[in-house]
Amino acid sequence: MSLPAAGLLELTAKLVDIPSVSHDEGNAADFVVAALGAAGHLETTRIGNNVVSRTHFGHPRRLLIAGHLDTVPPNGNERAVLEAERCLGLGSADMKGGLAVMLELARGVVEPALDMTYVFYACEEVEQHYSGLIELEKADPALLLADAAVLAEPTAAAVEAGCQGVLRIGVHIGGERAHAARSWMGVNASHRIGRVLERVDEFVGRRPVIGGCEYREALQAVRISGGVANNVVPDEAKLVLTHRFAPDRTKDEAFEAVCELLAPALDIELGDAVALEDFALAAAPNLDHPLLAALVDLSAETPRAKLGWSDVSFFTARGIAAANFGPGDPLLAHSAGEWVSREDLEAVYASLEKLVSTPL
Amino acid sequence: MSLPAAGLLELTAKLVDIPSVSHDEGNAADFVVAALGAAGHLETTRIGNNVVSRTHFGHPRRLLIAGHLDTVPPNGNERAVLEAERCLGLGSADMKGGLAVMLELARGVVEPALDMTYVFYACEEVEQHYSGLIELEKADPALLLADAAVLAEPTAAAVEAGCQGVLRIGVHIGGERAHAARSWMGVNASHRIGRVLERVDEFVGRRPVIGGCEYREALQAVRISGGVANNVVPDEAKLVLTHRFAPDRTKDEAFEAVCELLAPALDIELGDAVALEDFALAAAPNLDHPLLAALVDLSAETPRAKLGWSDVSFFTARGIAAANFGPGDPLLAHSAGEWVSREDLEAVYASLEKLVSTPL
Repeated sequence: MSLPAAGLLELTAKLVDIPSVSHDEGNAADFVVAALGAAGHLETTRIGNNVVSRTHFGHPRRLLIAGHLDTVPPNGNERAVLEAERCLGLGSADMKGGLAVMLELARGVVEPALDMTYVFYACEEVEQHYSGLIELEKADPALLLADAAVLAEPTAAAVEAGCQGVLRIGVHIGGERAHAARSWMGVNASHRIGRVLERVDEFVGRRPVIGGCEYREALQAVRISGGVANNVVPDEAKLVLTHRFAPDRTKDEAFEAVCELLAPALDIELGDAVALEDFALAAAPNLDHPLLAALVDLSAETPRAKLGWSDVSFFTARGIAAANFGPGDPLLAHSAGEWVSREDLEAVYASLEKLVSTPL
Repeated sequence: MSLPAAGLLELTAKLVDIPSVSHDEGNAADFVVAALGAAGHLETTRIGNNVVSRTHFGHPRRLLIAGHLDTVPPNGNERAVLEAERCLGLGSADMKGGLAVMLELARGVVEPALDMTYVFYACEEVEQHYSGLIELEKADPALLLADAAVLAEPTAAAVEAGCQGVLRIGVHIGGERAHAARSWMGVNASHRIGRVLERVDEFVGRRPVIGGCEYREALQAVRISGGVANNVVPDEAKLVLTHRFAPDRTKDEAFEAVCELLAPALDIELGDAVALEDFALAAAPNLDHPLLAALVDLSAETPRAKLGWSDVSFFTARGIAAANFGPGDPLLAHSAGEWVSREDLEAVYASLEKLVSTPL
């Protein structure tokens, strides 16, 4: 194994210091093009804020490694903090560490034993229809063809199989407007949403075991809003829920389960309504594909379930076997104190370098 | 009694059709100036969107009648609907009907037995520091001098004594941010606000009897907000409460009572905090003043407590005896279906015309 000279940790810090909140990944894409555009063994294509670098050696198999350029909004952690053995900062774990590994693999392994496709894409952290993968597919579907795909999402250097699906559910709560001084004449929609939040908070997620991996469901209120004026009993409040569901359920089954949970707190006559606003499909584990099985062998950890959603779902839905494998603790993703370790970065780099360098 | 030729109900409809949501009362003020500016018995002064018309006959007593030009935001009721016996539409009850009575009194009673001050002012429905009365007082305090004041707020043609105070309380709810797929790593501030809303909804208002009038307290959540991104467990949510309190409590006592109610649902270590953001003082009943006692005699109804806040508080705080007396059901104020009846308009006009025309 030959580690890149620059140092993966230092490169991660450099990437953290390029702000790239969803919809604003232009500078990060520029950086990728600057790093890979001139490499003789790569054909690099930019579409919007997405960059695809491919080899064309004519090998019988092609492996795609993908990572998203965007982060969630900052939380006082905009700047990278580089310590001896880890890098902190927005996106360090999710997933600028993974991008650093991809960049170094792409420019470091100039004669891979598999044909390689490296995909750096925008807008993974927002509604799926914004996804850079969809933008790339629309522009040129051939860019995304491969035998298997690895998403370099944070998995703490273990292979995480499949992914849970996501529903975004809008809950509209009604009421009756009145002057706040005579509140008993109205029905306060904000007070009523309190009862809905209570149901949501009481949700107990299923933990099904599928293909040897245990999934764990979740239901969270991610946005609340309501109010007309400071002296008016509001007749409208809005709740946005996110539901993570295991791959043994369809999106319709998952939505039905949430509707049943909320039903006792809702009143159709007051205008309450529940709507499925967006969804991303779950993906069952798929570790029997030879490239992914080889990756499991090369990684030091036991494979497990991917609890978050990831674009494993995108590739699985298109018949491409896919798994998650990257540096960084997935439990730290989107937290203010997220970080990635040198150890993880080097372990993931080493496993992927071997996978990419070994004819299969 | 001589009723105005144009008809109070028709004039109310005309006023409803002039949009005048708080901060946007320019056209309504123009209308008042056009109606009163040329009257020989009145000195009319405009300051901002506030208009004051005064007589200067040298009578020993001066009565001030005040009404606010602004309304709450529309609720599908922007246009006046004029029926045979009532007028519907935004502000019809609160308080364009009262403004119609004031306009007709001001131009109709050209030789009052008391000196008169008619005050049409802006921004009563928003934070008190925007109030047109404060703007007028700053520009020229003499404009607001009087022996007694009547607020032509909707009281269904009964004298409503004093007024309840108002607190605006901000409740900041903390949490711990995490990826929504691993929500057990974080603490959802929106879920936590559900418990606070529950406490608010369980509030039971005191109903003290003061000066023969029963008051009734209220506590309502008027705004809620929270959320970071659709895949993030939010670490922050905000609640705005309005508390109406009876005139036997100071603002500090009233605030303390709300803090005690909320305390069991709050956790300082998570960053929860309660702050008094704005307040308006309560005013005790003051019906023993001769002008107000005369008004009680002239009105057909038994006097009662004013449950909402009103600028009775402004005048009481400045040593001017004040009460509420106007057309329109106070229970309809700020509701989508508010209306005012011809009967109320004529009853209030008749009582005030007698009060204004009788030497005291």
